[in-house]
Amino acid sequence: MTPSMQPDPGAIFAELRAFERSAALKGAIDLEVFTHIDDGATTPQEIATKTSASERGVRILCDFLTMAGHLTKFGESYGLTTNSQLFLSKRSPAYIGSISDFLAGDHQREALWQVAAAVRKGGSVTDDALAPDSPIWAVFAGAMAPMVRFFAAAAIPHVVAGDVPMKVLDIAAGHGVWGITVLQLNPSAEVTGQDWPTVLEVAKENAQKAGVADRYHILPGNAFEVDFGIGWDLILEPNFAHHMDQATNVKLFRKIASSLKSGGRIALIDFIPNDDRVSPPMAAGFALTMLTATPKGDVYTFAEYERMLGEAGFHDAKLVELAPMPQRLITAVA
Amino acid sequence: MTPSMQPDPGAIFAELRAFERSAALKGAIDLEVFTHIDDGATTPQEIATKTSASERGVRILCDFLTMAGHLTKFGESYGLTTNSQLFLSKRSPAYIGSISDFLAGDHQREALWQVAAAVRKGGSVTDDALAPDSPIWAVFAGAMAPMVRFFAAAAIPHVVAGDVPMKVLDIAAGHGVWGITVLQLNPSAEVTGQDWPTVLEVAKENAQKAGVADRYHILPGNAFEVDFGIGWDLILEPNFAHHMDQATNVKLFRKIASSLKSGGRIALIDFIPNDDRVSPPMAAGFALTMLTATPKGDVYTFAEYERMLGEAGFHDAKLVELAPMPQRLITAVA
Repeated sequence: MTPSMQPDPGAIFAELRAFERSAALKGAIDLEVFTHIDDGATTPQEIATKTSASERGVRILCDFLTMAGHLTKFGESYGLTTNSQLFLSKRSPAYIGSISDFLAGDHQREALWQVAAAVRKGGSVTDDALAPDSPIWAVFAGAMAPMVRFFAAAAIPHVVAGDVPMKVLDIAAGHGVWGITVLQLNPSAEVTGQDWPTVLEVAKENAQKAGVADRYHILPGNAFEVDFGIGWDLILEPNFAHHMDQATNVKLFRKIASSLKSGGRIALIDFIPNDDRVSPPMAAGFALTMLTATPKGDVYTFAEYERMLGEAGFHDAKLVELAPMPQRLITAVA
Repeated sequence: MTPSMQPDPGAIFAELRAFERSAALKGAIDLEVFTHIDDGATTPQEIATKTSASERGVRILCDFLTMAGHLTKFGESYGLTTNSQLFLSKRSPAYIGSISDFLAGDHQREALWQVAAAVRKGGSVTDDALAPDSPIWAVFAGAMAPMVRFFAAAAIPHVVAGDVPMKVLDIAAGHGVWGITVLQLNPSAEVTGQDWPTVLEVAKENAQKAGVADRYHILPGNAFEVDFGIGWDLILEPNFAHHMDQATNVKLFRKIASSLKSGGRIALIDFIPNDDRVSPPMAAGFALTMLTATPKGDVYTFAEYERMLGEAGFHDAKLVELAPMPQRLITAVA
């Protein structure tokens, strides 16, 4: 990113008000504005009737959403953009609006707005989300599954190919989407999801909906304490390493290495910044989420993962780009 | 704004997390990170020592600020951008960091995050900031003055020229900066600031600091109730009309018209969107702030102001661009 070279107090004003953009989009999703427009209600009056709101409020919100690039406007009528039609209308099979419940929910906002206190302390000053069976992970699993399907569709084909028997463990499975995608791509695979018991209820339900429940198994408990067993062909660790410091990650990687078959692979999916740690934007920026929401979480570069994996006994670490998805995949061989 | 034509779930993710950018910048201002860097502390360790924070927290925050364009990074050292040096270091006479106390403060965030409820109701669901002598306006006046100086420096020369006696009333004077700028540009002008009594304390203090207190007078009370008197050459109404609906604005414009000398002028400074109501971004987007923070406030186009002013007896309404400032000026003759 090239910082502006021109003095511009308005840019600082705008940045301090960037939270309006999150609030407006979350509000519009809560009011199902995009769905109502998709159903043919396009004027403030028509949308207001559908969502039991005031015409004035709808007009102001829809103007804001147009300014922010989520709607189009012709005369007094609003329309959907490619992205809002596909992802924010409940009529679309690709609807992901539920992510706002987690990404812009109370728990996350409360943590982020205490950034100064978290910087002083060096870690989260709010409740520890990593505490056993924290209720936040059931919210997470319910809210994020629709979006993670896109991430999993980009990542999983790199580690699963063809119709061959394989035994896969999905660590911190959450909504179960990563493992379910394995089962959908490989009819001979068996997947075991590990996570807290209440979270695995969401995963089992998603496996049921996807028609793969007969090959989806569960391993409830803490990833650091529960016995993984041995003989896995592939162990997935998606979006979990960022919650811990490097020493703790090495410890878990060692446990994973000793649970894999010889030649078996680990697959890490995560926000992985470039070596400069300030790009690409979403991967680099995610470190602040970890600072404010966890005791010792962070984002790690590929070089850091390569070192941690090497220390745990892995070799042949490879980085796989998943752009335009904001995450990356790392594989390594036990 | 051209909405993206490519499906991009990451863009929705990023928008729902835009509040991180506001939180990070406010946190950095609170920790005086920019000032410490200006003082020569450039590594996480050096900055952490200066601000009594953790090195890890400082590194993560400064990486985020670099990603967001507020810092530069070379190796492990951070530097200031043109904007952060000028506006966010307390060593700069142009420091405006205090605006974060209002723009990203509890009162504003609480209102904005209830956008769905405000859309349903058609107005704010939080405390009425327009209540007599609301404490929020003293916060506003203290926080915003440094930035408004830039806006006033762009606007006031359009309505005040030379060293000629003139009697100026500043309605909803707040920090007093608009009127004080008149006094600085015209050594023969006399200014009277009207606002709630506690707010005028801030204005008087600012007039004192600017060395113009002998020509700065006050008129405490409600703009709709207090007697303006007659014979004013110029009446300023900066950032006040957006708090009210059109009928209420016409009522105040009538009162202003009857208080001006014949040929005297009103000067409105405000967020004034284009006729499409969705551009430019900050002016258009400000309507949402008014929806969520006031009972009936809004932004109005120049055509709407021209009609309201005409109804109140003004003529020759003119729109003056103040770009790159996000506000515009309207003048009209009584």
